Amino acid sequence: MILERFKVPDADQVYVPEQALRQTVTAIFEKVGVLPEAAAEGADVLVSTDLRAVESHGVSNMLRTYVQQYRTGVLNPKPQWRIVRESPATATIDADRGLGMIQGPSAMRLAMEKAKNVGVGVVTMFNSGHLGAVGHHAMIAAKGDMIGVCMTATGASVVPTFASEPRFGTNPISLAAPARNEPPVYFDVATSAIAGNKVRLAARVGASLLPGWVSDKEGNPILDETPATERGQFWHLPLGGTREQGSHKGYGFALMVEILGSMLAGALPCMLDASAGYKHYFAAYNISAFVDPDWFKDTMDRMLHTLKTTKPASGHDRVLYPGLSEYEEEQERRAHGIPLHKEVIEWFAGVTKELGVPPLATK
Amino acid sequence: MILERFKVPDADQVYVPEQALRQTVTAIFEKVGVLPEAAAEGADVLVSTDLRAVESHGVSNMLRTYVQQYRTGVLNPKPQWRIVRESPATATIDADRGLGMIQGPSAMRLAMEKAKNVGVGVVTMFNSGHLGAVGHHAMIAAKGDMIGVCMTATGASVVPTFASEPRFGTNPISLAAPARNEPPVYFDVATSAIAGNKVRLAARVGASLLPGWVSDKEGNPILDETPATERGQFWHLPLGGTREQGSHKGYGFALMVEILGSMLAGALPCMLDASAGYKHYFAAYNISAFVDPDWFKDTMDRMLHTLKTTKPASGHDRVLYPGLSEYEEEQERRAHGIPLHKEVIEWFAGVTKELGVPPLATK
Repeated sequence: MILERFKVPDADQVYVPEQALRQTVTAIFEKVGVLPEAAAEGADVLVSTDLRAVESHGVSNMLRTYVQQYRTGVLNPKPQWRIVRESPATATIDADRGLGMIQGPSAMRLAMEKAKNVGVGVVTMFNSGHLGAVGHHAMIAAKGDMIGVCMTATGASVVPTFASEPRFGTNPISLAAPARNEPPVYFDVATSAIAGNKVRLAARVGASLLPGWVSDKEGNPILDETPATERGQFWHLPLGGTREQGSHKGYGFALMVEILGSMLAGALPCMLDASAGYKHYFAAYNISAFVDPDWFKDTMDRMLHTLKTTKPASGHDRVLYPGLSEYEEEQERRAHGIPLHKEVIEWFAGVTKELGVPPLATK
Repeated sequence: MILERFKVPDADQVYVPEQALRQTVTAIFEKVGVLPEAAAEGADVLVSTDLRAVESHGVSNMLRTYVQQYRTGVLNPKPQWRIVRESPATATIDADRGLGMIQGPSAMRLAMEKAKNVGVGVVTMFNSGHLGAVGHHAMIAAKGDMIGVCMTATGASVVPTFASEPRFGTNPISLAAPARNEPPVYFDVATSAIAGNKVRLAARVGASLLPGWVSDKEGNPILDETPATERGQFWHLPLGGTREQGSHKGYGFALMVEILGSMLAGALPCMLDASAGYKHYFAAYNISAFVDPDWFKDTMDRMLHTLKTTKPASGHDRVLYPGLSEYEEEQERRAHGIPLHKEVIEWFAGVTKELGVPPLATK
């Protein structure tokens, strides 16, 4: 459900086959020291995200940052995570400076194991790197016939309602749930008015920022359309934008992520320690602990079918639900390749040459 | 953090002492058949909500509806709830047509018992009445040194993004968490742009609805200020209002409540069965299963102190956090009484006379 303004302009697109992208990303991760299985997991998260057309969190924005963080020692390529506290339904994990995106699937699988045993599993993680698209990890539970919830607490860029200084990250929340025949629910949103990576994406594709998305550096909401610029020219507003439009709700959701993510992981919120890094929350709900799972899947189908066949308001073609367009894009992109901005292709050309990895194959 | 426009005008206010309101509400519940202990629980939920200045969910809007539902047999005054499925961390409860607001505290206490045993407890409930302010139930966990989350799936009034027909309730989400000396976090928001009860409150106090809060009956967002009218003249928009301002996020949060509330309770979403009633979700997190609880409380104090002492943006007096103004109002109202609209006082005069209950004492 990405806005038109964020799409890569046709003239700037180069199509890359899924398998080629997977191979190159895996090889890059391995070259910076990541073990083969983990490298493949990382490539799967990134490429799956691009397949779902969540460009903001795919290879375009994130891979170059990860590579840099491995090369400068910010990330540990061979982390050994340590469970610091555990109960039948919970675990708190020290991630040993691993890349969250690569460790996330394992953390969700641990939550699922606990949910299988006692009904629900909640795993928190600190001392970790960027998580990638949080919805990907939630989806791991959905693919295992559970409901997954995943959130991550990130660095301070969002001003609370009425505040002049940032106190929260864009702290996204996601939920994924399986259906029988309809595409699964895949919900993944920043609790800020727009995601942080969307600003960088807007700058790359030359899009402007809409009223109510950001504030100036003194916390005043910018209520006119404004050009997308580099980071550092503004702060993010919480979802809602202004108090009248509900920014206190976006603010509260960001605080929720800080409490369930950072605080339950035993890590300081970013407002108390800017160097605390990313903190993550993974929850799995064993559907069969609550209800008959066949009834659940059939009823999900009925609900999702009802949503997508709801009569649209005038000026709109159809009603979507979270995960529907992502699923459709995935089919399309598996068949015809993933469109990347030519600037991203140039980055791949440079980094593969530098690392001694075979060049990325394009169509 | 209620907007000025929703406040009862001074000239229309009558102050009622907390204890007087508690006594009268308990007596009214008992007169319609509720057992004494449950009646006192119900009065506690309603009066606590008014003490927190959440007028939209206190005695003014809700009590008359509950009385009517007991008198017409919609609600069962002496429900015997039944656990239909259970695991160490979970329970699914058939509420036997009880009033959710009265049963909610017990459901949260069951979730807390499970959290004490295995780290997390999640309880879902169907075949139930209105839950009142969901945050109240979350706060029961916070008062027991746990984190509480509570949500409720209500009747269809919210149009999904791009849709012309309502498919969700205003489906509120709440979280409460304890601190050491600072007032606890009390976050409770509708996933619609504004809460359903706020519209009735606006009509009572003569306030208008702001742009982006509601749509016309064909799902077109109303982007001008418009008079508050009776229910039925418009639909609610999801939090965000329009797609550009993030209504797909509010839509997704509403769907999240439907999945975790209705679907995990084994009940049909309102879009599939308009008579399915309210469905509730209660979660308790045992803080000590994750981290040292003393560290948690001290760090919460540091975080909340940082938030409330953040420099405000120009034109604002201070930065709040969810629960701060509610706590301050509670101190004020405990000392000086609860301001009720004179129309509400008139309703109390009528109903107490009709039921043969002593009249409500005012100051």
